[in-house]
Amino acid sequence: MVQLIRNAFPSDVLVGPGDDAAAIDLGNDCLVVCSDVVTLSEHCPLGMTYGDFGWMAMAVNLSDIASMGASPIGFLSSLALPEDMDLTHFKEMIAGMKECANRFNTPIIGGDTKSGPGLIAGTALGLVPKGDMLTRSGARIGDLVAVTGILGEAAAGYYSLNSKLNFPSARETLFRPQPRLKEGMELARTGAITSCMDVSDGLSTTVAQITEASQNAMQIIWEALPIGPHVEEVSEVTGTSVEEMVLHFGGDYELLFTIRNDSLGKIHALDIDFTIIGRVIEGRENLLMKEGSIVILGDRGYEHFRR
Amino acid sequence: MVQLIRNAFPSDVLVGPGDDAAAIDLGNDCLVVCSDVVTLSEHCPLGMTYGDFGWMAMAVNLSDIASMGASPIGFLSSLALPEDMDLTHFKEMIAGMKECANRFNTPIIGGDTKSGPGLIAGTALGLVPKGDMLTRSGARIGDLVAVTGILGEAAAGYYSLNSKLNFPSARETLFRPQPRLKEGMELARTGAITSCMDVSDGLSTTVAQITEASQNAMQIIWEALPIGPHVEEVSEVTGTSVEEMVLHFGGDYELLFTIRNDSLGKIHALDIDFTIIGRVIEGRENLLMKEGSIVILGDRGYEHFRR
Repeated sequence: MVQLIRNAFPSDVLVGPGDDAAAIDLGNDCLVVCSDVVTLSEHCPLGMTYGDFGWMAMAVNLSDIASMGASPIGFLSSLALPEDMDLTHFKEMIAGMKECANRFNTPIIGGDTKSGPGLIAGTALGLVPKGDMLTRSGARIGDLVAVTGILGEAAAGYYSLNSKLNFPSARETLFRPQPRLKEGMELARTGAITSCMDVSDGLSTTVAQITEASQNAMQIIWEALPIGPHVEEVSEVTGTSVEEMVLHFGGDYELLFTIRNDSLGKIHALDIDFTIIGRVIEGRENLLMKEGSIVILGDRGYEHFRR
Repeated sequence: MVQLIRNAFPSDVLVGPGDDAAAIDLGNDCLVVCSDVVTLSEHCPLGMTYGDFGWMAMAVNLSDIASMGASPIGFLSSLALPEDMDLTHFKEMIAGMKECANRFNTPIIGGDTKSGPGLIAGTALGLVPKGDMLTRSGARIGDLVAVTGILGEAAAGYYSLNSKLNFPSARETLFRPQPRLKEGMELARTGAITSCMDVSDGLSTTVAQITEASQNAMQIIWEALPIGPHVEEVSEVTGTSVEEMVLHFGGDYELLFTIRNDSLGKIHALDIDFTIIGRVIEGRENLLMKEGSIVILGDRGYEHFRR
């Protein structure tokens, strides 16, 4: 279905359907726009609050702006809400969205409200100097593969809540994602980044999508992955494998990016928390090196309409 | 609820929640953005096809761009569709959207697809020279009130379908709205337009919203209104009043605009089909002159969350 949609919309924009966002040439700058829907029924499992939901609706869109290295300039929020929605819940939802807006200094500039099943269709706008824009498709053989922050912690939050465990920081990672806007902008400015995408759909899916767009492959080193602090404990208690949480589950709004082989110093010079996790290689299959073995890293992440 | 949302989002953009779209200052130009949700269950009554639905999702957003006098530069379409949606229906929907994109020369530049209840959250982007941008709030006492095209025909389409009458052109007005992009841009360029808004929610609601934003009132002359060719016949057959169809029902994607008192010649010089229907007056109540009497024109149009 996703492929069908991509084929349905050929476009003359700089990047269109298929990248995290669309970009429109404004002369010196590119206008970056992305649109992402969050639904109450899907995104409100377990103990997610309406405030979390409002935050989430904005944060997931800002993450797409971040992945292009852009600076956010505004957010629009189209609400389709049940007519009998509790007013307290509505206010909590709006408050959560405004907390996110304040935290990331992005004004909520408009939107629309309809009666509907309970969802927020968000649209985030950003600007980036044309030459600096990051896309999925520029990774080149030999580039280093890196990721900001930690992986698997959102999954740990999910499975711990499912098992009534109490890990507030993992819950926070799951329900209050922090789009890496500062990181995206700083990385973009170095000129050393050849591709970038957020890992919200899981590391394996992100690796698959960048390498598909860039027409090469990646070799990821398991032992190098920055695993979240609660992943192993949650794995032991719940029986969900660490691999599932770190590679496939998703929900971590970190940035995966590739660095020109000769430019690592420029990235170390930034005030950014990141880890080198592999390298771009020739080939068609993404590989995972683990305990001295090499296995194929399949795209087993989360994609709607492909389950 | 709408007022609550407006109060919830104070903003430092040029126009924000409450206007048809948001505008962001880019220097010489304003970037205009609007976001509107259409739902299958609400917008697919009677004989609307999936192709009509796809067209509608894009057209309603382009109409908001038109009402600000902007030139459209792109459209994003976030789909939330049932997982079991018929592939033929999906293709028809996309085809309808692309027909609209081609007709109005606006590329579909991105979006998102999720499983959901059957809706399209569209976002349209436009550019307008900063000084030319049209808003709701500039109408001044003495300005002439005008409307493009005809009124009531979408309602005639709706009620005729409800009564199994066959008026293809009324059906087309209802299901394939034609955003007045050319008209909006030409009007904006004259410098003679003091306010503008589309009448999609009905003439009475549009009059109420412009005069609320502009802090004055309008006197509308019933006999001057450009009534659609099937309105009277449908009224006779169905028993729905002509007033209901022309003043309140909505669905006509025409532009209501106000013209500086001394500048009517500039508008007549354009190649635009429009009709003068009244004047901006002092006061708090909008008035309707009909058959020599004056009545209050109440806001009895269609607004979600106010029924």
